Amino acid sequence: MAHSHIKPEEAREMIRSNRWNKPTSGVANGYTQANLVILPKELAFEFLLFCQRNPKPCPVLDVTEPGSPIPELAAPSADLRTDLPGYRIYREGKLAEEVREITSYWKNDMVAFLLGCSFSFEKALLQNNITVRHIEEKCNVPMYKTNIDCVKAGRFEGPMVVSMRPIPEKDVVRAVQVTSRFPSVHGAPVHIGHPEAIGIGNLDSPDFGDRVTIKEGEVPVFWACGVTPQAVAMNVKPELVITHSPGHMFITDWTDEKFGIL
Amino acid sequence: MAHSHIKPEEAREMIRSNRWNKPTSGVANGYTQANLVILPKELAFEFLLFCQRNPKPCPVLDVTEPGSPIPELAAPSADLRTDLPGYRIYREGKLAEEVREITSYWKNDMVAFLLGCSFSFEKALLQNNITVRHIEEKCNVPMYKTNIDCVKAGRFEGPMVVSMRPIPEKDVVRAVQVTSRFPSVHGAPVHIGHPEAIGIGNLDSPDFGDRVTIKEGEVPVFWACGVTPQAVAMNVKPELVITHSPGHMFITDWTDEKFGIL
Repeated sequence: MAHSHIKPEEAREMIRSNRWNKPTSGVANGYTQANLVILPKELAFEFLLFCQRNPKPCPVLDVTEPGSPIPELAAPSADLRTDLPGYRIYREGKLAEEVREITSYWKNDMVAFLLGCSFSFEKALLQNNITVRHIEEKCNVPMYKTNIDCVKAGRFEGPMVVSMRPIPEKDVVRAVQVTSRFPSVHGAPVHIGHPEAIGIGNLDSPDFGDRVTIKEGEVPVFWACGVTPQAVAMNVKPELVITHSPGHMFITDWTDEKFGIL
Repeated sequence: MAHSHIKPEEAREMIRSNRWNKPTSGVANGYTQANLVILPKELAFEFLLFCQRNPKPCPVLDVTEPGSPIPELAAPSADLRTDLPGYRIYREGKLAEEVREITSYWKNDMVAFLLGCSFSFEKALLQNNITVRHIEEKCNVPMYKTNIDCVKAGRFEGPMVVSMRPIPEKDVVRAVQVTSRFPSVHGAPVHIGHPEAIGIGNLDSPDFGDRVTIKEGEVPVFWACGVTPQAVAMNVKPELVITHSPGHMFITDWTDEKFGIL
């Protein structure tokens, strides 16, 4: 598909001009996509500290200067108010609207956080011939609340949310190795095997996303999930929080391989 | 030596009660030591952002809640006002005093940052039988200002400071591998070889620390240095900044191996 081979700048231009309003999976292949969380400056230090203390669920890729919608490091030619194909507006912790762009919502005290996303390590798994079931089954990854508490920072606290991928037993060690290379995009799994051990009752009833098939001889492997910081931010019930719509990510100028630490 | 085998809590008690007021190198061996930077809350977000954008020179290990001198994660039983053997008080960016404890200087709006220190990766080098010249020569590591600009964050900006260790040619690859495992304590080198390429004129005249011997067949290898964030903080000339005295580090409850990413 043509959109898989375009450059990030073209992809963002396509999105900005409303020629692409679907999920970004597969767009500008090889370039790192990111979760977006926009908060008032008053909460920014505590939130950045929360991310620093919980790097597996909250891997920070870039943070804008207060009031600026430009991610100077991740994509200096981009505008975070228009360059994602979908946004969610939360008021007092509740979803209020889903919109195509947020120019009219932007305020001078806002700080935007770009956080690593699992698309990057999933590609590394696929390149190692390790199956990614929800991609095979063309659905969303299953996500679960756990009994693992994040490390608190100021007003931000709550349980870690994980995503689950069933991995054939023979590939589990390699899956750990491959994803360990990418700590900036969730990194190594947080748990392998028994879901009960981390407070998950029934794999067939995810808290977010879709159920996937677990085949004979496969082990459920759990990675820290970028839904965690959003869930934690909502608990604080800020007057206004803006995030990307699920799957409608920000496409950076960086390639995934930049985040490989070895 | 007895002090090398004690636990972190005992070491801090020994320091707090003034029974140890020397550099901490070799104390409570195996436990991670950290650089200290204390700033007013008003600067904390920008400084944390600076560290996030420059993780090699500024690897954040722990940040206290504003007003609290307790590093809840790194050592919950510690008090950062008394548990280091030496502190430096900077006013408007200039060294004003060197003191044994800072209880009377502490204010309710202060935030303490603990940053990774090169002691941790030097031990990893030694365990791989890679020489560390300044330890052999019983002096301070040579440090140099470079022409590599740190990524700016708010008011914080400036050049990266690096430390240099001469490494035998046959060990250079291994030195990269060994230190890459520890991104939270400066990680992989930033440069190998020609000092001019990063703006260093004369290896025999370091900007900080001491000159060391470079033997035939050795290559100068440069790592990002924890002096960078201190130098950058001083540029901002805050009314009051407190740091550890050089070599007089904070001893955490964590072991170095905790920071090995693979």
